[in-house]
Amino acid sequence: MKHRSILGFLVWFVALLLLPRGAAAQAKLPYTPVVTPNGSTLPFTMKDGVKEFHLTAEPVKREFAPGMIVNAWGYNGSTPGPTIEAVEGDRVRIFVTNKLPERTSVHWHGILLPNGMDGVAGLNQPHVEPGETYAYEFTLKQNGVYMYHPHSDEMVQMAMGMSGFFVIHPKVPEQPKVDRHFVVMLGEWFVEPGTATPNPNIMTDFNLFTFNSRVFPGTDPWVVKKGERVRFTFGNLTMDSHPMHVHGYTFEEVSTDGGRVPVSARRPETTVNVPVGSTRTVEMVANVEGDWAFHCHKSHHTMNAMSHDVPNMIGVKQPAALEDKVKAILPGYMAMGETGMGNMMEMGRPKNTLPMMAGDGPFGAVEMGGMFTILKVRAGITSYADPGWYKNPEGTLAKKVPAPKP
Amino acid sequence: MKHRSILGFLVWFVALLLLPRGAAAQAKLPYTPVVTPNGSTLPFTMKDGVKEFHLTAEPVKREFAPGMIVNAWGYNGSTPGPTIEAVEGDRVRIFVTNKLPERTSVHWHGILLPNGMDGVAGLNQPHVEPGETYAYEFTLKQNGVYMYHPHSDEMVQMAMGMSGFFVIHPKVPEQPKVDRHFVVMLGEWFVEPGTATPNPNIMTDFNLFTFNSRVFPGTDPWVVKKGERVRFTFGNLTMDSHPMHVHGYTFEEVSTDGGRVPVSARRPETTVNVPVGSTRTVEMVANVEGDWAFHCHKSHHTMNAMSHDVPNMIGVKQPAALEDKVKAILPGYMAMGETGMGNMMEMGRPKNTLPMMAGDGPFGAVEMGGMFTILKVRAGITSYADPGWYKNPEGTLAKKVPAPKP
Amino acid sequence: MKHRSILGFLVWFVALLLLPRGAAAQAKLPYTPVVTPNGSTLPFTMKDGVKEFHLTAEPVKREFAPGMIVNAWGYNGSTPGPTIEAVEGDRVRIFVTNKLPERTSVHWHGILLPNGMDGVAGLNQPHVEPGETYAYEFTLKQNGVYMYHPHSDEMVQMAMGMSGFFVIHPKVPEQPKVDRHFVVMLGEWFVEPGTATPNPNIMTDFNLFTFNSRVFPGTDPWVVKKGERVRFTFGNLTMDSHPMHVHGYTFEEVSTDGGRVPVSARRPETTVNVPVGSTRTVEMVANVEGDWAFHCHKSHHTMNAMSHDVPNMIGVKQPAALEDKVKAILPGYMAMGETGMGNMMEMGRPKNTLPMMAGDGPFGAVEMGGMFTILKVRAGITSYADPGWYKNPEGTLAKKVPAPKP
Ligand SMILES: [Cu+2]
Ligand SMILES: [Cu+2]
Ligand SMILES: [Cu+2]
Repeated sequence: MKHRSILGFLVWFVALLLLPRGAAAQAKLPYTPVVTPNGSTLPFTMKDGVKEFHLTAEPVKREFAPGMIVNAWGYNGSTPGPTIEAVEGDRVRIFVTNKLPERTSVHWHGILLPNGMDGVAGLNQPHVEPGETYAYEFTLKQNGVYMYHPHSDEMVQMAMGMSGFFVIHPKVPEQPKVDRHFVVMLGEWFVEPGTATPNPNIMTDFNLFTFNSRVFPGTDPWVVKKGERVRFTFGNLTMDSHPMHVHGYTFEEVSTDGGRVPVSARRPETTVNVPVGSTRTVEMVANVEGDWAFHCHKSHHTMNAMSHDVPNMIGVKQPAALEDKVKAILPGYMAMGETGMGNMMEMGRPKNTLPMMAGDGPFGAVEMGGMFTILKVRAGITSYADPGWYKNPEGTLAKKVPAPKP
Repeated sequence: MKHRSILGFLVWFVALLLLPRGAAAQAKLPYTPVVTPNGSTLPFTMKDGVKEFHLTAEPVKREFAPGMIVNAWGYNGSTPGPTIEAVEGDRVRIFVTNKLPERTSVHWHGILLPNGMDGVAGLNQPHVEPGETYAYEFTLKQNGVYMYHPHSDEMVQMAMGMSGFFVIHPKVPEQPKVDRHFVVMLGEWFVEPGTATPNPNIMTDFNLFTFNSRVFPGTDPWVVKKGERVRFTFGNLTMDSHPMHVHGYTFEEVSTDGGRVPVSARRPETTVNVPVGSTRTVEMVANVEGDWAFHCHKSHHTMNAMSHDVPNMIGVKQPAALEDKVKAILPGYMAMGETGMGNMMEMGRPKNTLPMMAGDGPFGAVEMGGMFTILKVRAGITSYADPGWYKNPEGTLAKKVPAPKP
Repeated sequence: MKHRSILGFLVWFVALLLLPRGAAAQAKLPYTPVVTPNGSTLPFTMKDGVKEFHLTAEPVKREFAPGMIVNAWGYNGSTPGPTIEAVEGDRVRIFVTNKLPERTSVHWHGILLPNGMDGVAGLNQPHVEPGETYAYEFTLKQNGVYMYHPHSDEMVQMAMGMSGFFVIHPKVPEQPKVDRHFVVMLGEWFVEPGTATPNPNIMTDFNLFTFNSRVFPGTDPWVVKKGERVRFTFGNLTMDSHPMHVHGYTFEEVSTDGGRVPVSARRPETTVNVPVGSTRTVEMVANVEGDWAFHCHKSHHTMNAMSHDVPNMIGVKQPAALEDKVKAILPGYMAMGETGMGNMMEMGRPKNTLPMMAGDGPFGAVEMGGMFTILKVRAGITSYADPGWYKNPEGTLAKKVPAPKP
């Protein structure tokens, strides 16, 4: 896959040079751009044959879902930062401006480049101090889905939301063609209920788990047409593996942040366990219609905050039914006399805090949060706008029946 | 593997129809049933060519090991629920009756089926309210080891023990034949010492780790005959990966809940790290006799409760020897003036609470708990009853020798 | 790979017999010894055709990095214990003397041997009581990188540092030849700041993460010559997976503690997620010069102690800048009136406690700790001594530029 016809390359290259600067430059790309759900792609400009990108590291306000806004850190106003897309063989120049209250740097995770462009502050370059701009420049010698993130006070900066994807498309498009490719950065956060700023010192007891820094029901559905070849790339810069599970399908892992998985090494899965410090790209053909759950299979990661210090009411007689337990929050398990969160309460829960589980489906409450969304596979759609709920054909829906005879 | 002779199929099908209903119907099966240690298989009946199964979701009392009974939730009186077994190509109808105090649903994890049978309450079907019965019906288009579990308040319901295996045997038996296949559901629980009801709000600090909802020494030994081809399937619906380690052997992973691992993709291991939301099936030929430890390799997962808040006595002069530390439980590390668990104590530990490590072996205390059992490989046995302890041939036992000269 | 010429074997065997006892016996080995950074290799002697090794289990003082000494347990004065090296086909006899304050045993993790040599105390042999010596003897039927560790009170003993590598070289050397092979045991510890003894009861909230029981900046750099074929083996007997990430390269996993990964099953990675209870061996050709970070990608695992209970100061106005936060340690998040660690403080932190992040690089502070080191790849070096910092060729270093126009 390392060659393309010289003629084809020239045509494309000249076409690029003729294009206007900015987002318009991406109008006719020699690749199908990836989809960053709830996110965006970083525009580029061409300068002397080099693709130039600009990243600004800065504090951002991120709505995790309607009703909750988090004081995060990111790039260009968002967390995760915008997705960088380029083509194998490109020379890229990336300007990084630091508008954070502390110094930073950017590491290009998985990308093969000169040691001085690797971004480990102190080791490979000076720290980028607040107000400074650094330029990184290298030629892309590989293709795949990689990541960018800080390598300066990285525990804090990654916990605050600083990361993004770096997609390098192959020079020669792959066969069979991939119709749709979603890139999803996994996130773990601790935001004390009633507050808005993540605590980056938390190592294990996170309380919010995100897809591109959004939680269900704030996550966009992933819409595909029946029959399309679909890829999903998950990036993980958290503290835990996240087992990403698709319903109704099996998929195969086709690449990592180290490159392509040879066909002989592939294996079918319904869940890809994405390790920390890695990307995992899975592929499937969307040949069965429906509204399919797609989520992390760690059950606490599909819940929003507030669950972990709730007293254990299982088997305890209580006036409210079990499904009202969200509203029944008490001071907490280890509180030893604290007076609780009463003064932060608003409608039964603290301000700027989501219910543990939420989302309305066609058959009632979905009772999920966090790392959960819906893969919507439809025949006959002409756009990727949300097609609404799936209509089950006659006889294909679980149904209520009379109780069995004892 | 998708075809079998029409004649063979008819013979088997007619034979099935002629069999009486209930357990007896499983007397002559066209497959070798799996073994569910400390568990059971769900009987089925045939109705109009459809295999019918009945599951009742309900609270259950589960003895984890002699001396400890847990107030869990399960199916048909047990946790995990009974193992469903069927054959690729079968049409199955599964009735689910809800006798829990809250609503539920069942998701058929890994099984390819119509969207309306997938079991995500709210999204794919209504919740099954207490007292209601729902019918799921679909045709099995694949083979392998899958799982069933709730998809309604699933964090709570799975933490309470609700799960089971769904084994689909291939239409055409595999070659080489598998002689013995164990299916083991991994579990994580938090049961406060001195109590009996799990706390489903715990996310990381579990204190009991189970094989089919039993802890060592309450786990059955896994007995096989020397030379048999053996499979072990582990299912994981907990919050952590569990690295299942065999002593004395290497094995290969041959399938996941996504299907068969191609031979070209297999690799030898002594430990299969079972991710959350997955099954892992490993295979080996049992060609070396002995009593081989088989356990999770996370060392706290082979201990029972009470260990985690024990003050650190290492290097502290104390009247009791280190091995007596279990009896020396003090109020705990973060107790700040609490008066401890004294009033719950009985013989040095709380009621309904197991020792941290236990089990007697032929050479003394085994000092294990939790996710631990013994794989007993024997030549010349004619049943799978516990054959007792292995007798080491002359010269094959580690032995005490004089101290080396300094 | 199971045959070697009989003549070659005889020449080597006779040569071995003619060698003097002790370390000198290892002067002319039929294999390239592995490198145990910050560690050592266990000498052997030949006796009647058997390779004899001596291990003494005992308390050890281990300097994790200058400024911190830990009261650990190990073998022969060190943690991890010295690396055992032998050759496939060898018969080995290993004497284990117990100088710990409690009983122990040794399990030879991954090694195929008679049941009575497997080392699970109580099950496969008696416990080795303090003062006793046991002899283990078996013939090596495989090759690869294995481990040894206790199987008696193993949760405590492994948490205290007891483990080591057992390398079995193939009879017929592999092609292509491996030039350099590093073996690194991963460790997790909880040492309360201001103290020196690990707390083995901790299950999840560890605060020190080690390579061969050292933390950065106490970890030796891993030095290789440009063009060498290099292997890294990581062993994991902790409670968590550790995703080991190399910068500037991709590698392939070539073996586990179950044996060789077939070429058809290999896949490129930049991060190998090492599961608990396993070894993972990765291979790459060191063809790009530089000082490349090599570390666990869990961000808290590249920090030293003291970080986890620090109050969250993000966004809070404070007199000291963010980078001074290490010095600003306050009593802790859950302290509820405790008077803090003031009396243990010395220059802003407790005695015998390392800064959270440290290390000076050529461009300033590296801001790392724990499981972090530097892979130094150099052309033209003639020894593996630290070659100093890499000099970046003109035009290959990220550089400060003027701020972009708004
Ligand atoms: Cu997750
Ligand atoms: Cu486990
Ligand atoms: Cu780690």
